[in-house]
Amino acid sequence: MEDWAQCLDEAVRVARRAGQVVACAVQQEKCVRSKSTPTDLVTEADQQVEELIISTLRSRFPEHRFIGEESSAAGVKCELTDSPTWIIDPIDGTCNFVHSFPMVAVSIGFAVRKELEFGVIYHCFDETLYTARKGHGAFRNGVRLQVSKEKDVSKSLVLTEIGAKRDSATLDIFLGNMKKMLSAPTHGVRIIGSSTLALCLVASGSAEAYYQFGLHCWDIAAATVIIREAGGVVMDTTGNTLDLMSRRVVAAGTREIADYVVKQLQPINYGRDDSDPDNLALTSDP
Amino acid sequence: MEDWAQCLDEAVRVARRAGQVVACAVQQEKCVRSKSTPTDLVTEADQQVEELIISTLRSRFPEHRFIGEESSAAGVKCELTDSPTWIIDPIDGTCNFVHSFPMVAVSIGFAVRKELEFGVIYHCFDETLYTARKGHGAFRNGVRLQVSKEKDVSKSLVLTEIGAKRDSATLDIFLGNMKKMLSAPTHGVRIIGSSTLALCLVASGSAEAYYQFGLHCWDIAAATVIIREAGGVVMDTTGNTLDLMSRRVVAAGTREIADYVVKQLQPINYGRDDSDPDNLALTSDP
Repeated sequence: MEDWAQCLDEAVRVARRAGQVVACAVQQEKCVRSKSTPTDLVTEADQQVEELIISTLRSRFPEHRFIGEESSAAGVKCELTDSPTWIIDPIDGTCNFVHSFPMVAVSIGFAVRKELEFGVIYHCFDETLYTARKGHGAFRNGVRLQVSKEKDVSKSLVLTEIGAKRDSATLDIFLGNMKKMLSAPTHGVRIIGSSTLALCLVASGSAEAYYQFGLHCWDIAAATVIIREAGGVVMDTTGNTLDLMSRRVVAAGTREIADYVVKQLQPINYGRDDSDPDNLALTSDP
Repeated sequence: MEDWAQCLDEAVRVARRAGQVVACAVQQEKCVRSKSTPTDLVTEADQQVEELIISTLRSRFPEHRFIGEESSAAGVKCELTDSPTWIIDPIDGTCNFVHSFPMVAVSIGFAVRKELEFGVIYHCFDETLYTARKGHGAFRNGVRLQVSKEKDVSKSLVLTEIGAKRDSATLDIFLGNMKKMLSAPTHGVRIIGSSTLALCLVASGSAEAYYQFGLHCWDIAAATVIIREAGGVVMDTTGNTLDLMSRRVVAAGTREIADYVVKQLQPINYGRDDSDPDNLALTSDP
């Protein structure tokens, strides 16, 4: 078994550098365009930061493969092979970034033989660094993370995010799912606009669960390692094994809470990340 | 016209001190109880911090009146008179506090002759201090705040909070209002679990609007001064003048966005803060 510690060190360095670029860009006028829908935003910063991350990593690891949000939007096939593969979201929470809403992150995951090996997430506003490596624990600024051990859903805080589809039928399912969570009753539901940071809050024990339809592999790759290494579970919304490309996820501190959430959810079909590129257009809100 | 600068200075001092007590309490085991509903939480820390704030201010200003979340829950009449009155939320975001979810604030507002004179809000996790005094501008850590000047709702980010009522009919109205905001379409809706900090994000220009049914005078007293001094508007959900005791609010960077939100909202009746104490039981989630 190879030791990917050197790759992790490089990921931390480039995530910090990219995060500082994002933090500077927040102060400046943003050039905003929409991608698939009017609410699916992209800025020049997204593209520049992804280019910075990929070019830095490629120069160190020329034989590795790369999956990135903006490369995929530009038509690069989003395919996970057995090769060492970096899975990158340069700005998770683009809509937040556009509004200077302080929940924006750089996310870098790394998979080998289709298995996630480590994840690095940098919160660009409060400069928090989340890291985890398979079998070595999860950390926030070097302090070990532990998920919430709560099993009782009525004492849980649940996070979710709104997908990019805003047609009436999709919104009805999204809001119906939210009603089920509020009626459980849970303590509450929060929507912060960054899938990656929401998942980090689950890893930190600040929320018991997270679910979403419509996110992408680059939103969950790094965070999945971090939650699992903090003792939590990450799975498909059907309760099956997580499929990175399936654009849906349930994460929780305990199996009991995850199972409860899975049972409540009515699915929203966003297609797959690795299907025909024409179907990739519908990206998630964050 | 009296100068209340000395009172503002004292408010800043006690808000910082209270915020540090809250930040320490986050690390500790919490003794949680419910108030009106299973989702309406209170902890020993809420009561201790309110006692700290009120006793400190009362010793300096013995002739002033006090309205506080926990005093009101304990049956003290919630009444705004012409006397100088402090309006206090010791821990805004109690549910977040219970979960160590990093959106928790101390809020101290001050009114004279029923007019809000100044507001102080301290974010207990990131140690940000928001202050504003009527006619003197709004500040975050001493840097002047300015609301967003966006008038186009399709480019706006909208914040709201979930009230404590979780019956099916109330949730349907809450989610129906959210659907209208998402269908506008706006860029998105966020729910962070602290009315006070959500309002500070509007004051900071990080969101264009905020609306809520079910909050209290202590959630909006300080924040109203901060938003107005940052150039924004705060009004009743009917579009009329804000009534601090009406348990409902719309705030926005511009009149245009506020008017749009007002037109969309279906009301939820939470009664009034200054009505019979028995009706005060239903408090807001945060």
